[in-house]
Parts: sequence; C-alpha cells; structure tokens
Amino acid sequence: MSPRLTALLGIEHPIIQAPMAGVSTPRLAAAVSEAGGLGSLGVGANTAQQTRTLIGETRALTARPFNVNLFCHPPAQPDAAREAAWLDYLRPLFAEFDAAPPAALGEIYTSFLVDAPMLEVLLEERPAVVSFHFGLPPAATIAALKGAGIRLLACVTTPVEATLAEAAGVDALVAQGVEAGGHRGVFDPQGGDDGIGTLALVRLLARQTRLPLIAAGGIMDGAGIAAALALGADAVQMGTAFILCPESAANPAYRAALQGERAARTRITATLSGRPARGLPNRLYRDADTRPALPDYPIAYDAAKALHTAAGARGNHDFAAQWAGQGAPLARALPAAELVRALVEELQAARLSACATS
Amino acid sequence: MSPRLTALLGIEHPIIQAPMAGVSTPRLAAAVSEAGGLGSLGVGANTAQQTRTLIGETRALTARPFNVNLFCHPPAQPDAAREAAWLDYLRPLFAEFDAAPPAALGEIYTSFLVDAPMLEVLLEERPAVVSFHFGLPPAATIAALKGAGIRLLACVTTPVEATLAEAAGVDALVAQGVEAGGHRGVFDPQGGDDGIGTLALVRLLARQTRLPLIAAGGIMDGAGIAAALALGADAVQMGTAFILCPESAANPAYRAALQGERAARTRITATLSGRPARGLPNRLYRDADTRPALPDYPIAYDAAKALHTAAGARGNHDFAAQWAGQGAPLARALPAAELVRALVEELQAARLSACATS
Repeated sequence: MSPRLTALLGIEHPIIQAPMAGVSTPRLAAAVSEAGGLGSLGVGANTAQQTRTLIGETRALTARPFNVNLFCHPPAQPDAAREAAWLDYLRPLFAEFDAAPPAALGEIYTSFLVDAPMLEVLLEERPAVVSFHFGLPPAATIAALKGAGIRLLACVTTPVEATLAEAAGVDALVAQGVEAGGHRGVFDPQGGDDGIGTLALVRLLARQTRLPLIAAGGIMDGAGIAAALALGADAVQMGTAFILCPESAANPAYRAALQGERAARTRITATLSGRPARGLPNRLYRDADTRPALPDYPIAYDAAKALHTAAGARGNHDFAAQWAGQGAPLARALPAAELVRALVEELQAARLSACATS
Repeated sequence: MSPRLTALLGIEHPIIQAPMAGVSTPRLAAAVSEAGGLGSLGVGANTAQQTRTLIGETRALTARPFNVNLFCHPPAQPDAAREAAWLDYLRPLFAEFDAAPPAALGEIYTSFLVDAPMLEVLLEERPAVVSFHFGLPPAATIAALKGAGIRLLACVTTPVEATLAEAAGVDALVAQGVEAGGHRGVFDPQGGDDGIGTLALVRLLARQTRLPLIAAGGIMDGAGIAAALALGADAVQMGTAFILCPESAANPAYRAALQGERAARTRITATLSGRPARGLPNRLYRDADTRPALPDYPIAYDAAKALHTAAGARGNHDFAAQWAGQGAPLARALPAAELVRALVEELQAARLSACATS
C-alpha cells in the first residue's frame, strides 16, 4: 500500500464501505468515516432532494470525508410491449399472493447522466468524494465536480473500462471483481461480462494504470485486505461485510438470509432489476433461460419490487433483492466502528505475519 | 505462509506448476522442480503405459519431487442419439474444411476411477505427489496411494467439495478459483458451478479446514503469490503462467493466441470437451445457448479434436482448445527456471514491501 490514496481521500485506513443503495445509511457511512475508513452513501435510487437530506444527516454525525455514489447507466428506453410481456410472465407469481401486477412499469430511478438537479446538489454540498457506477458521466460533469474540489472514483470491471475511466479524469479506480455483491459495474452489459475475479483484475489494472486502485469483491476481513494490498491495490471497498452492521438499512429477513444457507451460493442475475447483480438466489433467479426479454434497467426493477411488496404483505420474502458477494458466509454482525477496528487489527496481524516469514 | 506444505511436499518454494494435460511435459515439470517448485505432469489424457514413460522421462531430468495429476470424473455414458445429434450439429463446420465428422465418437480418456493399470503404475513408480481433478478416487485407491508414501492433493472449487476431499483423507487442497484456466474442477457440473473467485474461495476454505491450502486461479506473478499467502494459502498453483515456457508442449498457434487480443477475454465453455473449462474463446464457444445437448465428457472432446484436426489441416486454428486463465495477458515467455526465479524474487519483494509499511 502506498499512502497516496488515503492521503487523497483524507482517511486513515485503506477501507471504503461500499455504497449500497437501499442498505447504506447516514449512520453507517458516518460510523465508518469516524472509525477512520471512508463511509459511503449509495444515492442511485434517490432524488436530488433526498440526497441533500442524506448528506446533511451524515454531516450531522461526522465532520470526516465520505463518499456519495451515483448510477451512470444509459437512461432506460421504455418499451410498452416488452414491459407488458414481462408483467404477463410475472402474473402467476403475483397471483400466488392474490395480487395483480401493476398496470404499467416506470423508470424508478433517474440516471445521473441526465439528473441536472443531482449535479447541482453535489456542487452545492461538495461531499469529499463522489463515485460512479455503471459508467461515467459526461466530461462537463466530471470537470464541474473536479472544479468543486471533489475526488472522483469510478467502478470498473475490465481493463478497457479502466482505460475509459482514466481518460475521463477520475482520481482512482474501484476494481470490482466478479465476487462482489450487488450490481456489476459493467458499463455495457449487452457487450457481455468478462467476469474477471478480483485477484486477476487488480493485477491486470496494476500493470496498465498509474491511478490508485481500490479492490472490491470477496474481501471480508483483514487477510483479504492484506491480499488486496499485496496485489497492488491502495485500498479496498467492502460491501457485504457491512450489511449485518446494526447501522445498515438491511431488514431482518435480509439479515437472516445472509446468515443462512443461501449465503454460500450467491448468483448473478439480471432478472430482478434489468442489470446483472450478485445476490442470495431467490425464486426470480430461476428460469433465467426461459423468461422473456427483460425491460430496461431499472424498469424491470419496478416489477420485481412490486412483486416483493405483494409477497411481503403475506410475510413472504422469496422475491426480495438480497444482494451479497461470494464472501457472504464470512459476514459479521458487528457495529461498524467495531468492524473497522477488527479489520485494521487483522490487517496489521497479516502484515506482521508476512514480515516474520520474509 | 507456514512452511508445513513445502516440508510436506519436499520443495523449497511455495509454487506448484499446474498439471496441464497436453501442455505439461517432463521437461517442464523437471525444470520447475529443479528450480525449487513442484513440477507436475497432467496424465489425465494418457494411458498407464504412457504415464510410466512420462514419469521415467521426468526422473531422468530431476531427482526432486514432482506431481502426477489424474482425472477422476465419472466414466462417460455413451448415448448414440446424443452423439449423432452433436456430430450433425458440427457437420457444417467440418464441411468448411471439406471434411466429414467421424462416424462415431469415443471415450478418448479413461477415468482414473476405473483405471486399474494406472493405479498399478503409480504404486510401482511412487511419484512424490499425486493430485486429483474432477473429483476423488475410491477410498481403497486413496488408502493404497497413501500407503505407498505418496502425498495427495485434491482440486476443489467449493467449501462442500473441500469437505468431501478432507473426509477422503487427502493431504492438501488445491482451491481453484473461477479465474483459473483449463477445466473447472467442479465434482458435479450438473449441480451447477458456484464460480467462486480465488480470493473468496481461499478465505472461505481457510475458515473451515486445517489442511494446507494451495491457491489456484489468476496468479501470474510474485504479487499474486504474496496475495495468496496473505489469504492463508500455503502455496500457489500456476498454470497459464507456464504455458509460454519453451519447455511446455503448447504449439505455436496457442502461444501466439495467448499473446494476442483474445487473452484479455477468456471464457468458460463446456462445448469443446463436455465439461466446463476456461480458455481463449474460439468459434465453438459461440452459440452455447442454441446448441444441442452435449455428449458426456470426454466423448464431446473427441468431436472437437476431430474438428480441430480437420481445420488444422487447412492451417485454421479456430477450433483449438487453447485453455487459459484470466491472468493470461500477464503470461511471460521465459524458460521455466527463470520464471520460477523471477516469481521467488517478486514474492520476496512483495513481502519486504508489506513489511516496510506495516
């Protein structure tokens, strides 16, 4: 590890809490930042006004730097026929809960690519760090954010995406391996997913870029952090490791599932949201080969959320989006500050052990 | 790293050259063993008599320990209808080279599970190490090999497989992450492949077993080795890193491809051999969704090899099995001894660097 990234981000430990839309909270982000890591808010599913509130709530809990994460996917293209066919396909599942599908589906989140009010909020609030998922915003947006003194991170899953992000002028790359939970950061899923593992991806990127690297995917403890640093990463980003923290917004069913048997066999599916994401497999993960074409992200997600709501009203959680990475069985239910402390101690122990045998 | 595994295997450095059927050679294995690692012969595609010869050739080049790797898949179930349909599907591809598919397909390799002569050769020749791929041999075979003083390794891809291998009495586990080139070691591909990355897999296994662990998949240099050791591995197994060595049996087309653009986008397919394997994508990787059901492994491989032969006769290498892992772009064309030396130096440098910052 070089200290360049921690210095750049103004943090003490090379640990970033992954922004997890729906799971991250101001309390979680603040606790991680207070403990010397970088807390994150995932606001991809939030409006500009909600984001302003979330940033304010986080600032009320910590004066330290934190990260705000945006979704940079191409805005959804509505397709009434495809959406109707999808709702039709889901109709029998709704019927199991005596419910009907919604009459129509909507684009439930606005992409940052076209969210002028969101950019305005960021330029006004000036969080220390902003990170991008699913792609990159336009050059003018990047220039404006940099001009406001904000450090920029971009999630990449391949060397080609890394080249694009570097050319766009971001300050560091989040190298997301296939082990990672949640949505794959792949810029263009239509072009296929190389599914590169964290270990290989970090080494590939270390050879091609001078930007600081943040390893993400499968890292759950200090040994994992030590490994990432040995690969040439400057820091790690950990999501699944923080889901069981009391400060996260994960509901009890999600927490129970993450501590159950399904945690050992996470899978990637696009069926829930319209874009590939890794999580605890549920009934919507099945039949991915036989289902009709999906509506665009996040229009498909509108349907899955409606189905989850219908099922949830009957106490059924078989359709919940319970994202998790391959390290899920190693998740610990600790307060975030304690978890960061444990990670730092484990990292130190791993480094001393490497020392002793070198 | 604890010294327990290197002591157990009688080697100096925690580096195992992966057994690669069709690529490994006595010269490669001997060079790696002479350099202080553990060389391997992949004899899954060889007869008992050929194996005896290969062992003899290796022994003529080194007195040091080396490893002999066996395929432990369930013997193929012939299915004339499925095989005929498959040959029919391939017929237009053969026609491109003015060739016809073979009249019938055969089980071109004998599984070690039913290869009594192979067991006899091993018990007579007593290589220092024997390793298993695709599963485990019967208890009596394991007992006989152990009784002969042979150290046993088993390749596993999940915690469940690790439990089976440990219960069977092997001495160490090769934890094969999804990054790895060549055939996935999955015991039962019908049950699905969890596709666990090396980083997550090694941490998961480190928590469940007291057996020494050998990390495999995506490891191409000393930084990768240092990372694996930080994860709790006792050694690494590297395959793709050794393909470009002059001592390997890789042909010029394979070497050229590994240094070309396809190396950046390896894929897993069962289409070539009947079992999922990662390699440089070729024409048989396409259309995996639309092809008919495959003959059993390795009956399907008989067809792919015939097609490759027909194409190769016209100077076309579009159907070659060019296995490679996700670290392929990092492969170096160095003599094996030089490569091992470089890996050891890089590992030492990585450890000193970890020391300096701890």
